[in-house]
Amino acid sequence: MNSGHLIGVGVGPGDPELMTLKAVRALQHADVVAYFSKLGNASHARAIAHTHFRAGIEELPLGYPVTTEMPKDETPYRAAIDAFYEQAAQVVAGHLDAGRTVAVLSEGDPLFYGSYMHLHVRLAHRYPTDVIAGVTGMSGCWSQAGTPITQGDDVLSVLPGTLSEDALTERLAGTDAAVIMKVGRNLPKIRRALARAGRLDRALYVERGTMTGGHHVPLATRPEEPAPYFAIVLVPGWEKKR
Amino acid sequence: MNSGHLIGVGVGPGDPELMTLKAVRALQHADVVAYFSKLGNASHARAIAHTHFRAGIEELPLGYPVTTEMPKDETPYRAAIDAFYEQAAQVVAGHLDAGRTVAVLSEGDPLFYGSYMHLHVRLAHRYPTDVIAGVTGMSGCWSQAGTPITQGDDVLSVLPGTLSEDALTERLAGTDAAVIMKVGRNLPKIRRALARAGRLDRALYVERGTMTGGHHVPLATRPEEPAPYFAIVLVPGWEKKR
Repeated sequence: MNSGHLIGVGVGPGDPELMTLKAVRALQHADVVAYFSKLGNASHARAIAHTHFRAGIEELPLGYPVTTEMPKDETPYRAAIDAFYEQAAQVVAGHLDAGRTVAVLSEGDPLFYGSYMHLHVRLAHRYPTDVIAGVTGMSGCWSQAGTPITQGDDVLSVLPGTLSEDALTERLAGTDAAVIMKVGRNLPKIRRALARAGRLDRALYVERGTMTGGHHVPLATRPEEPAPYFAIVLVPGWEKKR
Repeated sequence: MNSGHLIGVGVGPGDPELMTLKAVRALQHADVVAYFSKLGNASHARAIAHTHFRAGIEELPLGYPVTTEMPKDETPYRAAIDAFYEQAAQVVAGHLDAGRTVAVLSEGDPLFYGSYMHLHVRLAHRYPTDVIAGVTGMSGCWSQAGTPITQGDDVLSVLPGTLSEDALTERLAGTDAAVIMKVGRNLPKIRRALARAGRLDRALYVERGTMTGGHHVPLATRPEEPAPYFAIVLVPGWEKKR
């Protein structure tokens, strides 16, 4: 029997209309559709894509182990999450060995900070694999805000909000444009780093870009409260070029 | 009369199937479809999208002035190109004043190094405007290569190949992942900078990502010849995390 086909499917930033024609087609031909989610929570990627599932498609939810009690840098957390990805890859491999085409959903773009990658590195060398690029969350955010992010010879830095205040400050001072992810409770630190780098007046806070209830404000005018999960900070480039 | 509606439409990296549902819908409702191209050349964005044009849609090609003889940093070039964008914006504004919906095509994502932005900054404050995010060229390239680019707390730097060798070296040494655009005749310099930064062995050369004839090789194995326009260099992150 021929083995099946693994497809990493980017479903875009949130608006179901920002799925690609290729992603829709993949879901209309797949035997199995897999998606990650926290145990007990609905999958966000599934919510975006489910109207395109082929009738009779087999759904394969991959539920993360509960790890909120474990600090992320500690060995028990890493061991638990590695074991989870290993097991998820084995389940998907079982379907591929049986000749089934498995579409793995990924919010945004599968190979850009996506959990699909943990399956990809374990399976892509063993099975025929395709990755369908998707619109990233950051593209969704700057498009909803109507903010040109980069032009010409601009340097763009994509930075995690988990960096130290000093590291953030240095990188923000040395780039034309920036996107800061993992905002959440890092927002006060991000704000201080932007101020020290002289970029706070250009920074934009975007929440739930392209999703229901999405909105954006200049960061400088936003109250000092923690940000939710789907938040991002943009620093547009193109400063000296208009 | 109500004014028309301006829509920046991202058509993705090259594969027509990587257009979004929203982009397709916009082209089926627009009165006018505009696109930039070099005078005498076919528009690449039009080639990607044209099968979705509404029957009877009015096409508005915006042909760049011939500027190959002028050095890019010199005042006459800047003046010619500014005058061209100014005039293009006036033509589009004429259609909007007449109540027409104008879709402006953009390869990749409209607000990420896209020429659409030159119309956006001149018109978006004067007319109802929407921007439809698209799959970027870089997403298309790393997806075609099947190469995870960033994970977890990786920093990603998007760098123009026009930077000096020293500047490129410093930025490549200080980032987890990198995308180098504007490769072309800068490729020998980019290769030297990657070697000095200790990243050449991980660098991937991708040509015509998601387009017909697209391919990729480790940069270290590619012969020392100039690269064509649609080429990009990727340095995947995620080095210490597998």
